[in-house]
Amino acid sequence: MTPARISPQRLRQRMEHLGTIGRGDSGGISRPPFSPAHVEAVRLVAQMMREAGLDPGVDEFGNLIGLGAGGDGPVLLAGSHLDTVPDGGMFDGGLGVVAAVEAAQTLRDAGRRLRHRLAVIAFADEEGHAFDIGTLSSRALVGEIPRSRLETLRDRSGQSLNEYLRARAHGLPVARVPEHAAAYVELHVEQGPVLERMGRAVAAVDSITGILRTTLTFEGRAAHAGTTPMTARADALVGAAELVVAMRELALQHKDRAVGTVGRLSVYPGATNVIPGRVDLSVEARSPGEHELDDLRVAVEQRAQRIAGQEGLRLTVGSWDRSPPVPMDPGVRDAVVQALQTCGQPSLTLPSWAGHDAGVLARYIPSGMIFVASTAGLSHSPREHTPWETAAIGAQVLLETLLILDSAKDATRRLPVAYASQ
Amino acid sequence: MTPARISPQRLRQRMEHLGTIGRGDSGGISRPPFSPAHVEAVRLVAQMMREAGLDPGVDEFGNLIGLGAGGDGPVLLAGSHLDTVPDGGMFDGGLGVVAAVEAAQTLRDAGRRLRHRLAVIAFADEEGHAFDIGTLSSRALVGEIPRSRLETLRDRSGQSLNEYLRARAHGLPVARVPEHAAAYVELHVEQGPVLERMGRAVAAVDSITGILRTTLTFEGRAAHAGTTPMTARADALVGAAELVVAMRELALQHKDRAVGTVGRLSVYPGATNVIPGRVDLSVEARSPGEHELDDLRVAVEQRAQRIAGQEGLRLTVGSWDRSPPVPMDPGVRDAVVQALQTCGQPSLTLPSWAGHDAGVLARYIPSGMIFVASTAGLSHSPREHTPWETAAIGAQVLLETLLILDSAKDATRRLPVAYASQ
Repeated sequence: MTPARISPQRLRQRMEHLGTIGRGDSGGISRPPFSPAHVEAVRLVAQMMREAGLDPGVDEFGNLIGLGAGGDGPVLLAGSHLDTVPDGGMFDGGLGVVAAVEAAQTLRDAGRRLRHRLAVIAFADEEGHAFDIGTLSSRALVGEIPRSRLETLRDRSGQSLNEYLRARAHGLPVARVPEHAAAYVELHVEQGPVLERMGRAVAAVDSITGILRTTLTFEGRAAHAGTTPMTARADALVGAAELVVAMRELALQHKDRAVGTVGRLSVYPGATNVIPGRVDLSVEARSPGEHELDDLRVAVEQRAQRIAGQEGLRLTVGSWDRSPPVPMDPGVRDAVVQALQTCGQPSLTLPSWAGHDAGVLARYIPSGMIFVASTAGLSHSPREHTPWETAAIGAQVLLETLLILDSAKDATRRLPVAYASQ
Repeated sequence: MTPARISPQRLRQRMEHLGTIGRGDSGGISRPPFSPAHVEAVRLVAQMMREAGLDPGVDEFGNLIGLGAGGDGPVLLAGSHLDTVPDGGMFDGGLGVVAAVEAAQTLRDAGRRLRHRLAVIAFADEEGHAFDIGTLSSRALVGEIPRSRLETLRDRSGQSLNEYLRARAHGLPVARVPEHAAAYVELHVEQGPVLERMGRAVAAVDSITGILRTTLTFEGRAAHAGTTPMTARADALVGAAELVVAMRELALQHKDRAVGTVGRLSVYPGATNVIPGRVDLSVEARSPGEHELDDLRVAVEQRAQRIAGQEGLRLTVGSWDRSPPVPMDPGVRDAVVQALQTCGQPSLTLPSWAGHDAGVLARYIPSGMIFVASTAGLSHSPREHTPWETAAIGAQVLLETLLILDSAKDATRRLPVAYASQ
């Protein structure tokens, strides 16, 4: 059998070409979903798909699909997304799409005939920056966002999703993600510093983090910052500050199994000479474990209640928004681990601390992810980078993973694609 | 000698009449300086002054002056201000003005001929809500705000101070505060809870608080709230929160000699899922003691530096705005204490934790203050209140203080009045 070795040069050239689209003066990439820059990226990747022997088209949610040759049996899906945050990096999303195209082209060029038909997918809106809904396109694909809601979505300029989709003008045929799929594999940059700190290039992902979010409000008494003695105060900001510090302590109790963040905090009335009467703050906790999330929720509420009691404040806890941890399919995870070995990489599995389209698809079909190292852990930044050798190793691991999955005992599932008419 | 006893009924009636001007739906008083409500209050108090035998007029800074009968010798000044904060209380400023009118009328009605000419003053803009300069009118009076700066002042609607003053239309003659003054006495609500907590009605003020203000900026690294492990963070909000908690601890080390407040705090970028990269916060410390203020400045800077070092943050300390403590004139303070005894009130001196016009005048002429209790310590609030019996005791203490000062050995000083032409 001809060894199927991806081309590091071609991978890099294609990434650099894609990285010119939406690039701003800072060097960062801005490709909001459905924007002209996004459409241009879709067209460029469609051309790459054709070069790789894939047949590109765009579905009714704006997702680009490149179907490989083969019959109507279950597909093996690989890909990621083509949108970016404003002033983000060129690897986030793009690398997973281009690596999947590279794997497909390498397999074809090597004459490796697969049992499954390969399909490369580039989701349109993963970051959620148009309509404030993360993984919008994959969730729409599987029917998790009702059509009635999709129709009411408007971005900041008042444009509707439907207007964007009708006007998409990709110059590409309409396509559909096939209903029967054996697996989905997504290569993605880690977006954190763990791999780099461990001196590793690549890892298998074992689960996608669960996320808990709520808003807390501490209310005290706004009063004169001069005439109110320290012992007569009910300072909402002092209570909120104690919770900010406690949030870190509570997350650290779970060692590397949890993170906790207060990212938003607003002080009212917010004047130099007035004791804060009210503070609203966001609380976010993440963990790959259900147990840790439950623990953190209870611990944050108890600590906030205790602080409110001690400081003479009134506490209001908003409703908790909970997205549970999503385990990656053990079969796909093991295939990635085996592929790591094939590529001479040490075995390693990590949780993903960010959400991904693979977390959506994992609810329906066997899904898994491959992480590649992010330099200095940076992402959503113009300084986002992944060394080119690392990117190439990742693409080879993706190819090997597809080969392993192709030969595995078939456990095809149905993807509940939510297209308007079949 | 006929005893000179102020009329609690007349004091209350006049206060309630004044309290109808600028009253909103909440019950709060809104009399921004130079507004129609303020002008109406000036006209009403001018009428009260006439009833008290005072000759009212308005000076070129908008201050209302009521001159008593008598020669051209040094005056004894008493009064306060007639402007209010938006939605404020009816006692803040107004009580000191009406009590001074009441004292003048009582002395005249009792046939008490004073060695000094009495003058009641109602400053126009103490709160600083038009041009963001506190004690604007008293500082302008003594030439502390250059005419060139006064001419450039504009409020939020773009109106200049000069336009307000030209259009003042009080229907009152032009007047001037006399240049030679023996003393200034200001009765004012405490605006804090100390008197009420002590079960007292009235106190002499021994000094007006010094105030230190600055802005601190903590800068860390904005990063993904999921993919950045707790141990790899430089969270600007955690550092800022530690300083908020420390600020209270540092102020409490000085017991009842200092207060410290963080009233403004802004988080950037301020998103639920982004670790705060920068926090700006205001720091304010007050003390009647120079020593405590110096201590607090050093302690806040050291603590902030230590926190920045521990949290891996960059600290920027803005320039310190320092208004030094202003001791009240010992002679005037002792006169108030003696007046307390005359009125059967226990001896008590307190610092003022808020700025007042008396703090400005004290730099030039012997000045002092009388505090009356604020119910629940509330001020700058529609719920501001002072019991009517307390207000009456305060007015009687003011009257007795004026009598004591009138008979004291004269130490006249020159008030550097900054009128355009003499």
